[in-house]
Amino acid sequence: MKMIIIVRTDIEMGKGKIAAQVAHAAVSLVLASMGRSTWNQWLEAWLEEGQPKVVLKISSLSELLERIERAKSQGLQTTIITDAGRTQVEPGTITCAGIGPAPDNEIDKITSDLKLL
Amino acid sequence: MKMIIIVRTDIEMGKGKIAAQVAHAAVSLVLASMGRSTWNQWLEAWLEEGQPKVVLKISSLSELLERIERAKSQGLQTTIITDAGRTQVEPGTITCAGIGPAPDNEIDKITSDLKLL
Repeated sequence: MKMIIIVRTDIEMGKGKIAAQVAHAAVSLVLASMGRSTWNQWLEAWLEEGQPKVVLKISSLSELLERIERAKSQGLQTTIITDAGRTQVEPGTITCAGIGPAPDNEIDKITSDLKLL
Repeated sequence: MKMIIIVRTDIEMGKGKIAAQVAHAAVSLVLASMGRSTWNQWLEAWLEEGQPKVVLKISSLSELLERIERAKSQGLQTTIITDAGRTQVEPGTITCAGIGPAPDNEIDKITSDLKLL
């Protein structure tokens, strides 16, 4: 089991900002998976495994959205994080997106070619 | 309402690693706050406010632990994140710690002098 968060590298964000955006995605995925049959089972298994997360990078918004669409069409839980934009980026900017928790092989179909941030 | 995550700067971590550790802290705080009376009320209020998170830095483990002890003694929810150590840091290394979600003034008593990561 794992959770993947994909961060845009085509917008300027400091490491603290990136961390907060990734944390937002992780919390959103956990809350949205609760009580939702298969997603909830995957969530429980993921928590038992120590909640592994992998943070990946992508160089454009269109590629990011394309991955998320593929994950959705495969029946995976997804989230897209839009920043409030008080600092560093324009209000409403999509900063990152997350997939899972889900079995490794399900997620690898969508993100195995992306590099670690 | 806010959640604070304090990251050690005296150990070497890349930005993806930091993001994963901070996300781990955020998820742990959310799960541990659920169904726990006051903490749960603060969690609900924090989620309604868009789950604001602030990522701060600290330069030693002893200082980090001292802040967490103070937060605990004030009755705040806390978590300490230990890395599995498969990459970048030694197994069992404490990488970051989190406080909250809690009212801003409660958290500011403990962390208002710390700088943003």
